[in-house]
Amino acid sequence: MRTISENRCFGGVQGVYAHKSDATDCEMTFGLFLPAEAEEEQVPVLWYLSGLTCTHENAMTKAGAQKWAAEAGIALVFPDTSPRGDGVADDPAYDLGKGAGFYVNATEAPWAPHYRMWDYITDDLPRVLFSAFPLAEDAQSITGHSMGGHGALTIAMSFPGRFRSVSAFAPIAHPTASDWGRKQLGAYLGPDAAKWAPHDATLLMRKRGFDGPVLVDQGGSDQFLDLLKPEALAEAMAASRQNGTFRIQKGYDHSYFFVSTFMESHVAFHADALLA
Amino acid sequence: MRTISENRCFGGVQGVYAHKSDATDCEMTFGLFLPAEAEEEQVPVLWYLSGLTCTHENAMTKAGAQKWAAEAGIALVFPDTSPRGDGVADDPAYDLGKGAGFYVNATEAPWAPHYRMWDYITDDLPRVLFSAFPLAEDAQSITGHSMGGHGALTIAMSFPGRFRSVSAFAPIAHPTASDWGRKQLGAYLGPDAAKWAPHDATLLMRKRGFDGPVLVDQGGSDQFLDLLKPEALAEAMAASRQNGTFRIQKGYDHSYFFVSTFMESHVAFHADALLA
Repeated sequence: MRTISENRCFGGVQGVYAHKSDATDCEMTFGLFLPAEAEEEQVPVLWYLSGLTCTHENAMTKAGAQKWAAEAGIALVFPDTSPRGDGVADDPAYDLGKGAGFYVNATEAPWAPHYRMWDYITDDLPRVLFSAFPLAEDAQSITGHSMGGHGALTIAMSFPGRFRSVSAFAPIAHPTASDWGRKQLGAYLGPDAAKWAPHDATLLMRKRGFDGPVLVDQGGSDQFLDLLKPEALAEAMAASRQNGTFRIQKGYDHSYFFVSTFMESHVAFHADALLA
Repeated sequence: MRTISENRCFGGVQGVYAHKSDATDCEMTFGLFLPAEAEEEQVPVLWYLSGLTCTHENAMTKAGAQKWAAEAGIALVFPDTSPRGDGVADDPAYDLGKGAGFYVNATEAPWAPHYRMWDYITDDLPRVLFSAFPLAEDAQSITGHSMGGHGALTIAMSFPGRFRSVSAFAPIAHPTASDWGRKQLGAYLGPDAAKWAPHDATLLMRKRGFDGPVLVDQGGSDQFLDLLKPEALAEAMAASRQNGTFRIQKGYDHSYFFVSTFMESHVAFHADALLA
């Protein structure tokens, strides 16, 4: 692992690091905010998964999360959204290939060799983080925005016991029924829709739900409402009697102005679970 | 004036607008955050002048100021840092030409036709703002980062009575004695150093000071300390018995991680003056 940058930030350190990933078979870059408490003890960790076109950097610079994480004494992890590098397959569209890994393990050509973001986020990166930094493996929560909200919800529900809480900002909530989903899941996993189901938050919510609290915020003026399908997830949460909160935030769109506005609330939600 | 974007943000609206500027003789873009209170009444306004290489966008997305401005009911203005467009002179260096207007009115070729950022910030943009938006002209304060800190300090001291308070993040504090200053002031204003003096915060502080409170934050691990020369301004503030505070923030560098960390404190400082 090599250090790309470290900046003092809200009394802690905002770092950027790169490492060779076995899962994606390429060098991966991630951001990690460590609060001041990490100088003396292990701290809880909140994962933030980013959306289409993002790298590790967008949320790190625009979501305004460090302030709240510093106050709570919680670390923040900002992974990249896909494999990277010259030898990695790509597509001209913004919503397939680089920047659009969709948090799955691809089985189809040309994606299979590197597009294994599910294993990267759930296995490879955790091993790096918990061996190299003072992070408490038994105090993890996860959140994300858009495609990253999809990733956060599907991963949280697939690893019972690992995350104490999950939240999402405007998640891609029902990808098997949306053009943000059918296109990518078809490309990465092939045409058999049965293989897509484990990567659909609404279907997972109907089937098993999450063993802790869930918080979802959705902007009421989001320009992508037709693709996100929040109503499907809201219905599934209520039907499953999920311990959780689903909020429509009137007037807000899909941007980081929306994310940053409600970040304090999300960090506080996770802090309640992580510091309990 | 045309609207480029408007996003709901912390209960208010983060807008981006473009207008033809008489001062710079080109189209200029600026960001304006209006808190919710602006729907019903005129609100105070805090100017934020940006640093080298920045546009109107950097602070708007990375400084985290909207949260604190929304809480205080204060508007934020984010101007661009230079004239723009195909017909505008430029230089290959990052610190001259576009993105590096230095908040002066150029008198020398090839800069004189468009590089009139002093007039743009002090005359042209205010006329647009106070005619088009519910902003209280008698409740203005100003801040900025690096080159923008230089601009904020020099403009505030040059217009007694206009701004109730001034602050700066890592300002270019003594440009007539620095390579961040001598190069640009020479290019824009010519070789006569007497013409540079009105654009040097340290010299202005020694000569007249500011008729209100001053707050300056400087990262102790800033990579540009030799160019910024904070010690000159600190000495001048103390020698002038300026009502003010100069702080070295240990371990912080020149980045927006530094700016965002101390933004809450700066907005609170200005709110004290603006809401008095």
